[in-house]
Amino acid sequence: MTELTRATEDQRLSGAELSEAWRILDAGERVDGFRLLSPTEGEEFFLALSAHDQFELMAALTPAERKLWVRLLAPDDAADLLQEAPEAERPALMALFDEPTRREVTTLLAYAEDDAGGLMSPRFARVRPEMSVDEAILYLRKQASQKLELETIYYAYVLDNQQRLLGVVSFRDLFRAKGASAVRDVMHTDLVSVPENMDQEAVGRLFAQHDLVALPVVDSEGRMKGIVTFDDIVDVVQEEATEDIHKIGGSQALDAPYLEVGLPSMVRKRAVWLAVLFLGEMLTATALGFYVDEIERAAILAVFMPLIISSGGNSGSQASTLVIRAMALSEVRLRDWARVLRREIASGLALGLILAAIGFLRIVLGHELGGKYGEHFLLLGATIGLSLLSVVLWGSLAGAMLPFLLRKLRFDPASASAPLVATIVDVTGLIGYFSLASWLLRGTLL
Amino acid sequence: MTELTRATEDQRLSGAELSEAWRILDAGERVDGFRLLSPTEGEEFFLALSAHDQFELMAALTPAERKLWVRLLAPDDAADLLQEAPEAERPALMALFDEPTRREVTTLLAYAEDDAGGLMSPRFARVRPEMSVDEAILYLRKQASQKLELETIYYAYVLDNQQRLLGVVSFRDLFRAKGASAVRDVMHTDLVSVPENMDQEAVGRLFAQHDLVALPVVDSEGRMKGIVTFDDIVDVVQEEATEDIHKIGGSQALDAPYLEVGLPSMVRKRAVWLAVLFLGEMLTATALGFYVDEIERAAILAVFMPLIISSGGNSGSQASTLVIRAMALSEVRLRDWARVLRREIASGLALGLILAAIGFLRIVLGHELGGKYGEHFLLLGATIGLSLLSVVLWGSLAGAMLPFLLRKLRFDPASASAPLVATIVDVTGLIGYFSLASWLLRGTLL
Repeated sequence: MTELTRATEDQRLSGAELSEAWRILDAGERVDGFRLLSPTEGEEFFLALSAHDQFELMAALTPAERKLWVRLLAPDDAADLLQEAPEAERPALMALFDEPTRREVTTLLAYAEDDAGGLMSPRFARVRPEMSVDEAILYLRKQASQKLELETIYYAYVLDNQQRLLGVVSFRDLFRAKGASAVRDVMHTDLVSVPENMDQEAVGRLFAQHDLVALPVVDSEGRMKGIVTFDDIVDVVQEEATEDIHKIGGSQALDAPYLEVGLPSMVRKRAVWLAVLFLGEMLTATALGFYVDEIERAAILAVFMPLIISSGGNSGSQASTLVIRAMALSEVRLRDWARVLRREIASGLALGLILAAIGFLRIVLGHELGGKYGEHFLLLGATIGLSLLSVVLWGSLAGAMLPFLLRKLRFDPASASAPLVATIVDVTGLIGYFSLASWLLRGTLL
Repeated sequence: MTELTRATEDQRLSGAELSEAWRILDAGERVDGFRLLSPTEGEEFFLALSAHDQFELMAALTPAERKLWVRLLAPDDAADLLQEAPEAERPALMALFDEPTRREVTTLLAYAEDDAGGLMSPRFARVRPEMSVDEAILYLRKQASQKLELETIYYAYVLDNQQRLLGVVSFRDLFRAKGASAVRDVMHTDLVSVPENMDQEAVGRLFAQHDLVALPVVDSEGRMKGIVTFDDIVDVVQEEATEDIHKIGGSQALDAPYLEVGLPSMVRKRAVWLAVLFLGEMLTATALGFYVDEIERAAILAVFMPLIISSGGNSGSQASTLVIRAMALSEVRLRDWARVLRREIASGLALGLILAAIGFLRIVLGHELGGKYGEHFLLLGATIGLSLLSVVLWGSLAGAMLPFLLRKLRFDPASASAPLVATIVDVTGLIGYFSLASWLLRGTLL
């Protein structure tokens, strides 16, 4: 931050005020606001921005400012920032970093963004097994005061001379141990580490299971490459849930905040699934084409059509979202499909019976009160009731099994969205409904 | 763990093996497996279990074992365990704790489970502002080696003699500072703290924004009551996302893993919404009751009915899930409703035009290929196209605005589930469709 752009005390803005207003400011106003922050607040504010916002802010700053701010970034965050930039602008951004950071960032960029390697920072504290506890503490103190800031000094990783990970020692352990003991005797060897290419969703689950501050990342030969810290994980967990929710709602994941996605991109991400579902749903018109005669003879069947197919869609949507989430949390795995199937048969029957009873009562009561269903109202009631029971059972089964099928075929189970399940159940449910009606009402209404 | 129940080396099971099998074991098998773990693995395994599983496991252990294991729990986790127990069994469980823990747990139980107070642990490291850095390090070392384990020694909170929070000092700060400086001069005073009754979802957002390891919790007079640590937050973030996903799918949140919810409870949590939606969807039958004549005269209108209402439901489901998630992440707030409305008008029009074009083409092509739509096929195509455009636009608007309405009325916006939006759009969409058809097709098909 240069003297020219730095505001005087009385014009200052607080970071919280700027955060509050951020989303409704345009690029120019954001930069103006950012320059009004005190240096400490500016630093905290900049580091808390998403990589996307950091990149947009950078674009509006002067080259001198840009250099100052990017140098605050840890290498994993610097790599994230670079990934926001179009390919052509990356070399210019890269040139802003100092030499060691540039090397680290280049290594990190080689990893897929969603892998453990793409999340990790290479700046971890390391000690040797043969050091004494006192030496280790001194050595950590030296590492902690180096120019390149470490992600955490609270966990030090014990590496042999091939950089292979032998164990971990927390600062707390060192602190409690006798100064003359060897690190080798104080370290924990039963540590959890992750391979470089582990998916970030799986890394997130490990963090949640083990309540860790940091996880070491090792290559296939056991050499330690970096650490993933808990602060990256909260973001990962949120991101993964957002992706799943967007998919469950029946669109592609937006991958950016709702209000910041460009309209063409938003329409594209929604149109694809909407059109696919529409083409699928066209099969309802095809199926119904075969029942035009029945509809003309008993229009009352068409009247109950939306009620019946929507009940199937709703029970399917419940079942699929419960199973998708249980899979994302590893509560349910592929091999549990038969247990889930049994549960959904039971739930589907129970739920179907409840709706069938309400539907049947509605027709009987409707008849008693208005008489509009004709002499065969009991038969009509039975048709509607039986259709509801079957469609709810079928919806629950289809909704619960589709995520398994998708995972088995190596697709994301979250693509078993509420609308997709509803579409499948609509088409099949209509055929079931009219088949049942043809069978039960032949000779009376039909 | 007594000698009697402890297995010999060769019978031992690893924690990972037990975790793997846990979900498919019954209570007795779980206890047997648990007793086969080595003491270290048993400890790690027990602490990683959910409060629910801990409670069930406890019930199957001997009283002596029970006492040993509960004493491993930090007070916040102990309070969670107690909340799993029926009211009548709590005093017996409480009696297992040592006196200081019992006092802490009693205090924590007074907070709502979803508040910052319900998440926090009272075991934080504290120092006085007038201490020197060297004194503070010594004092922390003493606190770290006490019997009651602190949640973290890496952040020490600076309190005055009224227990009011003045600042925070990280171990790293102390480590780098000169030994003779006063804590007062090293501490950070610009710290984020949260009130006791802040909702856990808001606490989770603060963690994500500020990349914190721990957040201090203060009462209304600024007195520090405890800390919330990052490991509780990953769980909170997952839990909140799970609740939202369950609601978006159209059921109540299960509040437990899918395979572990009792069947009656699962059916109850799904039946309520399913029945409400069913009652709402009955309005489609009521509405269609007014169009029986039209359906008898032009059964073709009924044939396209599912296609049209499902398109409205699908676009509504997309819009509502995108808005619900954006609200949960604070990307969209109540006052942003007009901006969201403008975006959805634009997206809804674009998406509606796409589907209208496909729908129109399908009818024209269907006519050219099979001739089944009669001489008025262009008029029918226009009716279907126009209905699709209106229903998709209407679905997008209704889906996007319903979460705002729910939040305004202080309900959970996530209750604007895909099925609820679909139901609303089904009823209104049908009326729109038949009104449009009556107007455009009068004198031809009708």
